[in-house]
Order: sequence, then C-alpha cells, then structure tokens
Amino acid sequence: MTGQSGLFVSFEGIDGSGKSTQARLLADALRAAGHEVVLTREPGGSDGAEEIRALVLQGDPDRWSAETELLLFTAARRDHLERLIAPALDAGKIVICDRFADSTRVYQGQSRGDLSTKVDALHQLMIGREPDVTVLIDMDPEKGLSRAKGRQGVEERFEDFGLPLQRAMRDAFLALAQKAPDRFVVIDGDAAPEVVAQRVLDAVRPALP
Amino acid sequence: MTGQSGLFVSFEGIDGSGKSTQARLLADALRAAGHEVVLTREPGGSDGAEEIRALVLQGDPDRWSAETELLLFTAARRDHLERLIAPALDAGKIVICDRFADSTRVYQGQSRGDLSTKVDALHQLMIGREPDVTVLIDMDPEKGLSRAKGRQGVEERFEDFGLPLQRAMRDAFLALAQKAPDRFVVIDGDAAPEVVAQRVLDAVRPALP
Repeated sequence: MTGQSGLFVSFEGIDGSGKSTQARLLADALRAAGHEVVLTREPGGSDGAEEIRALVLQGDPDRWSAETELLLFTAARRDHLERLIAPALDAGKIVICDRFADSTRVYQGQSRGDLSTKVDALHQLMIGREPDVTVLIDMDPEKGLSRAKGRQGVEERFEDFGLPLQRAMRDAFLALAQKAPDRFVVIDGDAAPEVVAQRVLDAVRPALP
Repeated sequence: MTGQSGLFVSFEGIDGSGKSTQARLLADALRAAGHEVVLTREPGGSDGAEEIRALVLQGDPDRWSAETELLLFTAARRDHLERLIAPALDAGKIVICDRFADSTRVYQGQSRGDLSTKVDALHQLMIGREPDVTVLIDMDPEKGLSRAKGRQGVEERFEDFGLPLQRAMRDAFLALAQKAPDRFVVIDGDAAPEVVAQRVLDAVRPALP
C-alpha cells in the first residue's frame, strides 16, 4: 500500500478521562476489521522521543523552565513524526496517537499567559502537521482526577495538580475543539468503556480509508 | 554588583581555530585585571544543557534529523541562558562563552538549504538574545583541520567533515561577521596563542564595563 495516505487519529483529554483505554480499544476494533494500525503515544513514541521524554519527566519538576520543556517536547514530537507517524501514514496505515500537539497547547500553552503564542508559532515552524481526526474524550474533572490518582507512574508531575487545574485543562481542550470543529470529535467519556468505545468508532468510521 | 548589566562575549570559529584557548586566555586576563568572569561553552554549559548535549552528541550521527537536532540544541541554549548566562550578566559579571548562536547558524543553518530560515526563526522565537561582542577567530581551514585532528573527543562528529566543509564553514562565519559588524570582531588566529590573545584583549577592551 506504499504511496497511499493513511489516517492520523489523535486522542486527547484530561488525565483519567480514559483516552488511553479508548485509543487501545479503537486500535483493537480497527485491526479486527482488517486495517493496519500503529498505536503510539506522546510524549515519546519513537526511540529518540522516548529518551527525550525520560529527560523531561525524570527529576525535579522545576528542573526545566516552561520554555525549555516546550522545546524538548517539540524535539520529541519532531522525531516521533519523522521516524514513526509519517512513514506509517505514507504506507497507508492508520496511526492512533495517545496525545499529540493539542496536549502541548493545553498543558504548556496554558501554563503561563504568554506561552500560548510561542506554542503555536513553534508548532507552525517545526511540526506543521495536524491529525486528520482528534477524538476528545470529555470527562468531568472530579471523576477524571479520582481515576488518575488510582494509577502510579512517572507522569505524576502532570497529574498532581488538583481539581482547579483539571477544570481549566478541560475547558482548554473544549475551546480547542470549538476552534477546529472539522478536526475534533468530542465524545462523552462518562460511561462504561465499551459504550464510549462504540461512540468513538461511530465518530471515526466516516473518516476511514 | 547586583542589578548592573555585565558583558556577554562569545567566541566563534571553525574547529581547530584556537577559539577555546583564546576564550580561556581572555578569561584569565580579565580575572587578573579584577573582573568577575564566568567562562562557559556550548553546546552545554548548564547542568540541563550538558544532559541535552550528551543526548545529541552520543550515538549514531544519523540518530537525529537536522530539525530535531536544532530543537535539542535550542533547548540546551535556552537552559544555559536562563540558568547561567542571564543571572551572571544581571549580577554585573563578564560571561565568556565558547560558541553561541552563530555556531548554530553556521553548522545547523548551512547543513541544508532550507534550514537557515528555521534556525533564524527559532532563535528569534525562543532565544532572542545576542552577545554584546562576538570574537571570530579566523583561521585557514587547512591549519584548523590539522589542529582539530590532533585532538580526541566526543565532538568528532563535527570535526570529521574534511576540508571542503571547513572552508564553507569559515566562509559562513565571515559572512555572519559582515552582516553584524557592530557585534563581531574578526581576529586573525594564525599566530602564536599569546599574540592572538593580545589582539583579542585589545578588541574587547573598549566594551568592558
């Protein structure tokens, strides 16, 4: 299928929204239907990007400034896009990515008032690619937070911000979805995983190659 | 001296030009004259930037694309600037930096025809600061290359490009100097180190705080 263009689907949402589970369930469903699917995630996703991810997420949270962190995540995304995502799409595959540039817009872009412009300019300059479809799993922050706290992992930095921040992040994701309605589908994540998975599949199906 | 503004001096030049020696000799001379001097270098220079440097320079030369490498070096520079250079300047010190943004303009910017615009835009967006004085140690590439080959180190990647590339890099440095004559001083590096050091000191002296 070389030369064909595949489909690039990203999943976004606050911590505990269930987006990682939904990304996996969509990959399973599409594989079962005979599609070639690459399931990946950010930050990380390629060998180099995983090393950059480790550099950013390990150690003291104040180790890097917001600007340096933004540059490192952009370097990781560039590597991931070049080495994994773009070649898979060029081979006609479906790429499902757990978090992509919208997470940077929300988590880095909203962290300080003046950083949002830099996030957008840097994306334009060094990445320049959007998913074909972005599935936003929308979730009540109180439920999302209690789900996230039930897990352990190196991403605690991003999950240990409490309820007010989770609310702000949810609002920021919804605002992005409103600004790009052709790309986003907003799915209510407050239901059993298999119910949400069916909603996701119904939303993505029209875009399938 | 907190609150005063110091002096930011960078040294640039092709490998083997003697710029690192000259940076050290200038630091020695200024310290002997009673100035507070911070001697540093890029890539690296701060704890975080040294870790990014190691990530870029270790391993297969094709490990990172030109764009990813550019983002990683810019992240390192941002960290170095925030954590070491800017605080020292704010405290009224003289900062002497062995390589800064001009090396990126030359080595990354010239590596492919279309990357130069990205290098400039990225600097503008995420760094935005130039040295007060840039000392370009100009050197005949054949002499520079034979000097560089006499050394060992992890930077072989950048030194193992041969004479045609060294010539192109020299021309690129001289072109930058021509475009920013108020910032650059071009010093002929083809003389005994102490002779070159005196030329450097004479050139920098008018800018001293």
